[in-house]
Amino acid sequence: MLVEATGHLIDAGLLGKALDVVTAGGGRYRVLDFEIGHTTDEPSRVRLEISAGASRLHEIIINLGTLGFSELEQRDADLSRVRRNGVAPEGFYSTTNLETKVRVDGRWRPVRAQRMDAIIVVEGTRARCVKLRDLERGQQAVVGYHGVAVTPDTKRREASDFAFMSSDISSERRVEAQAEHLAGLWRRTKHDGGRVVLVGGPVLVHTGQADTVAKIIKQGWVDALLAGNALAVHDVEAAVLGTSLGVSQRTGQPELHGHMNHMRAINLVRGAGSLKGAVKQGLLTRGIMHALVQARVPFCLAGSIRDDGPLPDTEMDLIAAQERYAALLKGAALVIVFGTMLHGIGTGNMIPAATQLVCVDINPAVASKLCDRGSSHTLPIVTDAGLFVANLGRHLNRRAP
Amino acid sequence: MLVEATGHLIDAGLLGKALDVVTAGGGRYRVLDFEIGHTTDEPSRVRLEISAGASRLHEIIINLGTLGFSELEQRDADLSRVRRNGVAPEGFYSTTNLETKVRVDGRWRPVRAQRMDAIIVVEGTRARCVKLRDLERGQQAVVGYHGVAVTPDTKRREASDFAFMSSDISSERRVEAQAEHLAGLWRRTKHDGGRVVLVGGPVLVHTGQADTVAKIIKQGWVDALLAGNALAVHDVEAAVLGTSLGVSQRTGQPELHGHMNHMRAINLVRGAGSLKGAVKQGLLTRGIMHALVQARVPFCLAGSIRDDGPLPDTEMDLIAAQERYAALLKGAALVIVFGTMLHGIGTGNMIPAATQLVCVDINPAVASKLCDRGSSHTLPIVTDAGLFVANLGRHLNRRAP
Amino acid sequence: MLVEATGHLIDAGLLGKALDVVTAGGGRYRVLDFEIGHTTDEPSRVRLEISAGASRLHEIIINLGTLGFSELEQRDADLSRVRRNGVAPEGFYSTTNLETKVRVDGRWRPVRAQRMDAIIVVEGTRARCVKLRDLERGQQAVVGYHGVAVTPDTKRREASDFAFMSSDISSERRVEAQAEHLAGLWRRTKHDGGRVVLVGGPVLVHTGQADTVAKIIKQGWVDALLAGNALAVHDVEAAVLGTSLGVSQRTGQPELHGHMNHMRAINLVRGAGSLKGAVKQGLLTRGIMHALVQARVPFCLAGSIRDDGPLPDTEMDLIAAQERYAALLKGAALVIVFGTMLHGIGTGNMIPAATQLVCVDINPAVASKLCDRGSSHTLPIVTDAGLFVANLGRHLNRRAP
Amino acid sequence: MLVEATGHLIDAGLLGKALDVVTAGGGRYRVLDFEIGHTTDEPSRVRLEISAGASRLHEIIINLGTLGFSELEQRDADLSRVRRNGVAPEGFYSTTNLETKVRVDGRWRPVRAQRMDAIIVVEGTRARCVKLRDLERGQQAVVGYHGVAVTPDTKRREASDFAFMSSDISSERRVEAQAEHLAGLWRRTKHDGGRVVLVGGPVLVHTGQADTVAKIIKQGWVDALLAGNALAVHDVEAAVLGTSLGVSQRTGQPELHGHMNHMRAINLVRGAGSLKGAVKQGLLTRGIMHALVQARVPFCLAGSIRDDGPLPDTEMDLIAAQERYAALLKGAALVIVFGTMLHGIGTGNMIPAATQLVCVDINPAVASKLCDRGSSHTLPIVTDAGLFVANLGRHLNRRAP
Repeated sequence: MLVEATGHLIDAGLLGKALDVVTAGGGRYRVLDFEIGHTTDEPSRVRLEISAGASRLHEIIINLGTLGFSELEQRDADLSRVRRNGVAPEGFYSTTNLETKVRVDGRWRPVRAQRMDAIIVVEGTRARCVKLRDLERGQQAVVGYHGVAVTPDTKRREASDFAFMSSDISSERRVEAQAEHLAGLWRRTKHDGGRVVLVGGPVLVHTGQADTVAKIIKQGWVDALLAGNALAVHDVEAAVLGTSLGVSQRTGQPELHGHMNHMRAINLVRGAGSLKGAVKQGLLTRGIMHALVQARVPFCLAGSIRDDGPLPDTEMDLIAAQERYAALLKGAALVIVFGTMLHGIGTGNMIPAATQLVCVDINPAVASKLCDRGSSHTLPIVTDAGLFVANLGRHLNRRAP
Repeated sequence: MLVEATGHLIDAGLLGKALDVVTAGGGRYRVLDFEIGHTTDEPSRVRLEISAGASRLHEIIINLGTLGFSELEQRDADLSRVRRNGVAPEGFYSTTNLETKVRVDGRWRPVRAQRMDAIIVVEGTRARCVKLRDLERGQQAVVGYHGVAVTPDTKRREASDFAFMSSDISSERRVEAQAEHLAGLWRRTKHDGGRVVLVGGPVLVHTGQADTVAKIIKQGWVDALLAGNALAVHDVEAAVLGTSLGVSQRTGQPELHGHMNHMRAINLVRGAGSLKGAVKQGLLTRGIMHALVQARVPFCLAGSIRDDGPLPDTEMDLIAAQERYAALLKGAALVIVFGTMLHGIGTGNMIPAATQLVCVDINPAVASKLCDRGSSHTLPIVTDAGLFVANLGRHLNRRAP
Repeated sequence: MLVEATGHLIDAGLLGKALDVVTAGGGRYRVLDFEIGHTTDEPSRVRLEISAGASRLHEIIINLGTLGFSELEQRDADLSRVRRNGVAPEGFYSTTNLETKVRVDGRWRPVRAQRMDAIIVVEGTRARCVKLRDLERGQQAVVGYHGVAVTPDTKRREASDFAFMSSDISSERRVEAQAEHLAGLWRRTKHDGGRVVLVGGPVLVHTGQADTVAKIIKQGWVDALLAGNALAVHDVEAAVLGTSLGVSQRTGQPELHGHMNHMRAINLVRGAGSLKGAVKQGLLTRGIMHALVQARVPFCLAGSIRDDGPLPDTEMDLIAAQERYAALLKGAALVIVFGTMLHGIGTGNMIPAATQLVCVDINPAVASKLCDRGSSHTLPIVTDAGLFVANLGRHLNRRAP
Repeated sequence: MLVEATGHLIDAGLLGKALDVVTAGGGRYRVLDFEIGHTTDEPSRVRLEISAGASRLHEIIINLGTLGFSELEQRDADLSRVRRNGVAPEGFYSTTNLETKVRVDGRWRPVRAQRMDAIIVVEGTRARCVKLRDLERGQQAVVGYHGVAVTPDTKRREASDFAFMSSDISSERRVEAQAEHLAGLWRRTKHDGGRVVLVGGPVLVHTGQADTVAKIIKQGWVDALLAGNALAVHDVEAAVLGTSLGVSQRTGQPELHGHMNHMRAINLVRGAGSLKGAVKQGLLTRGIMHALVQARVPFCLAGSIRDDGPLPDTEMDLIAAQERYAALLKGAALVIVFGTMLHGIGTGNMIPAATQLVCVDINPAVASKLCDRGSSHTLPIVTDAGLFVANLGRHLNRRAP
């Protein structure tokens, strides 16, 4: 079997990984042709002959595909008909989050709505990612590995403003510099017309930064907010009762009847019918949720098994919540996750590898797990989320985008 | 205002906490009567006069209530009519997870279905906990703090078999002894006819212990299992394809096309209609989910925003999932959480303080957060969940309960 | 055996702990007399009769002693002669970090130089703590438990400015408020003439805060600094070469030959003979160590097995280093540990329980372990040490003490 | 400037890294010649022309050197005379832990005693690593970067038995398989005559595994043990008093006077003069230290600032301790670190990259930091050290090496 690839094969390490894939998969390779880019800017080109037993060869080719290697003797992708709603045909191809093309009618077609763990459905000459559960009887799905080409992540690491930060997950870094850089990236993204989506946990409120985040939202920096029930509950609790999880925002001391406060906050919003209702009725006059309503920034609160209440706005149907998250993430250029592993992972599953993802968490394991997508477009920042947001606010709130 | 309490006021530290509550709340106290238990077994009795401004006095009395102090001049609980479904009346009483009584028609009535963050609904002379969202127009809900008495957790710590383990959250303990003790507690609980509920994360599969857990289930040790989509997906993946998250169970090596395996596992179950269907059709022949189906042990898989698929069995309507969790937890005597913060917290919200709760996690912060319920009925165990379950299995699987 | 105690027995929880000690130790108690303080300010007084087997009774009495209970039938402390240098007599009493008295010639004498794990040496009517290795042949050491009285920590928690912070180890707090409070405490301590000692790890440099700390030192806020080799090495590296551990302080990027830089920094100081020499010769003109030399603030760098170099100033004889640490800690009113478990624990061993100890670390386990001394005079702060010091500097550097 | 390299340039990723080094350092490259290994076993060979400003060029060449690239126009290493003991000449070359050669008198000479952060001293035609502090006036030290060639780590990852474990730092692995593999590696190492050195923290005792470790030692599996004061103190405490840090080894419960026990253990050994003395006098009859003495396995206990006592055997002169550690590590083929960051890092500084290093810790950050040496010869294992050692013992103690 002959395969070929072109691009930054050396400096992005692709060729090395490809040879690893072959030997680790029990195969052997011969380098037939190799033209190395003679200068920094020239791409390289390589042609390999792979030999292995038939079943192993299939695996190797699939894996080479994810590195951008495609068969020389190109064939169209094999398609198979979906016979039951929500069930894929035998041998279906399951996508990565990398930009993908499929060969249909002799030509390579881009796959739209790229996300990981999806099935590629081909309609005429158009191809798109469809979630397993959304497959419909009669659709044509890609099976096997022929005619599928993945564009690997060849972004040169040193080209990134964030190169230095992503080199390792550590709290012993100049977090102030990171805040300044993130603010700069955010400003450039907005300047270029890119969408910025925040994904936040209740730590934004517990650390006393609800007003900072609210101001960032009101200035127009945020295009959508994704969270769970808790962020909104504690934000309302802080705005209305001055506590978060019963701890006074002013003094930091647990209030005596504080454990009832989050339930009172939930009840207030339930009484008003929705967060929007609470704002309209003048019951909610500050905080993150107030800012979102006032600035008409869309948001989605995804429910979970541990939710109290919930708020009327919390989407407890998780199928619907996933659809809403995905819709709000569509076209996002920058996604920033603050202190929530659950919603951070949910978000990560829905966005293509090319979306810049920033994960801020005091726990190195969380920051690293969220950013672990085999992509150079991620930046884990290990720090106190509250102090970090306060810093970020000082940069962003100086002037609107 | 006069309040009174009886019980192990000294050795459970209740009197000290009560005096703290008064002074921290801005009040002053006078001890009017104090009879100390003269020996280990005698209860003590104290009567306090509390003085404070009116609004502060209310707060203090509420808080003393959670410590078992009740007003001498006893009044019935105040009730208020629910005017809208799912919205509580102004000033509603929000419950703790401690055993509670309300005074109705001059007599103290036990509150049934005790759980935290609920409203007490009184129907005739019967009282029960109702979740905020389940309130129905016309119901009578307790408001304020009069006529509510909470039974504090006075279990003597040294009486517990687990005393030594709960004294602090540390991995530097003899985990083997903990496994032996937990096995002993489990055996006694089953012997006494108590229900045992497992709450598990995918770590049970990733660590290669699916068969150990399956055997524990088949022997009859488990009355229900609560989990999320991931545990079941990776269990099926391991049973059918021999990998979990694409990592071979046999060699521990990532398989080449492994990242597609969990999607294939999901597709297999979707094709079979359900986990039960997959077992019936002979597609699923081992592992945790197989054991549950075969042994007819009920389970609930609660959906989340990060789920792939999901499996047909995964309950993506979180209202329904919470109801199902609560139903399976009803009457549980022992609840053991393995490596899942999300489902562990969800579970903790639903059970009364008196239920013995054991939390096994390699992360001390998780073990401690899960067990942080102000109750002596919790046992955090910080260890490698896989090795711990293997140990536990050696004790339990010697003979059935 | 009759024992008696006076004080805030209830609100500090001492009576409850005492009864626990008796029952946990296999004994039984009878409360003979109990006068409870009728108002917030009155002390309580209790007399207990303890019964247990002889060997158990000894243990119980020792433990009651640490809670402030002393035998009614008072005896002088038993003394035994030290027969070999550095070896204690059989049955020696090993101290805690709590204020202690011994009864000599019928009167209670304060024990000077209180620290934990020491032996009490009595010379005439004077008593003091002596480390095991410093015992000298011929000295009289206290053995057994008679005639030793420990003053328990009865500081009322709610009286502390830091009450709310110490209630639990969590990063989800308003760290900005904590910085403000610590700055206030620091200012009051200096105003009252108290000594403030910093204990710091290299994180102070890695996070880019060397100049902030240098300014704090130059303004006169710090009376001594305790650290290891690494803090000083990376401080010099940052001051001279602009990197810490090879990472540029300006850009945050690893420099290409950066791994050699810390060795060049060490060599520079070795060439100058000492840090003081490097300052005098104009080789070191900024940073923490420069500030200490310029402001004539004493410091000690304790060696460790992992040290490179070391610097000429690093004390590699750990006996000498422990002596020097202890000397610099003498009389300290406030000790603040930034990001170093090793030197933090070393420090904690040397100071009495009454010294206010603050531990700042991004790792909750470290902050909690350092502050775990059974004393109310500790404050764990879980946050990003760099951002926290930057905040602290904004408060302190506004004006000198 | 022309540079050249030969070897597994592609599959070990070296060429990619080299091109990164050039562009990141502000230079440009042209590939003059490139012969790729056409099959799995053939080496590749590349010649690059590097252009950059003079100062940048130096940096680039140094960094290429660590990747195995050397100048084509080969020159001898530049040497400079040491003018003061313990101070290196200006511009000294500071070593890595990778195998290194220097060119002297026209020929490449191996550098002996390879370790990181050392100076290369040339005597005649022999070269060796010398620690900064050990430099002696008159010695010739390598300065600059000419004539220094480093052999990069080209060990093919997939060739390693441990490949699958080192791929990421995670506790969600089959720890039992890891124990089995480590036991196998240990057995093969001993079979081949290799030295195995253990580095251990007190967790080995706290988890109740002192007897397991003792048996492993007595069977002849261990060639040296490196630790601190605490391991030995708690081992003696456990052996003599049945507690570790005051916690009963049998019941896991803190003993009532337990906090004095570690001081009694220290005093016992001080009385006997040494651990060996305590064994000879029959005072110490079991545990790890007893096994070492009985089996005549050498050990070193390095002192630290936090040590109590210390034991007479603890080396409080850290210069001496580092020498002793290094001597015991000489020629080690396998080094296993159990639960101690301090001594683990100290050890890591002293051994060449080619030594197989295994780090077992329940904290992923520790395991990863210890193993972070840019070498394929490391294996982090995240698990409960006690359960892991128990497992390991079951494999090893079946029969002696």
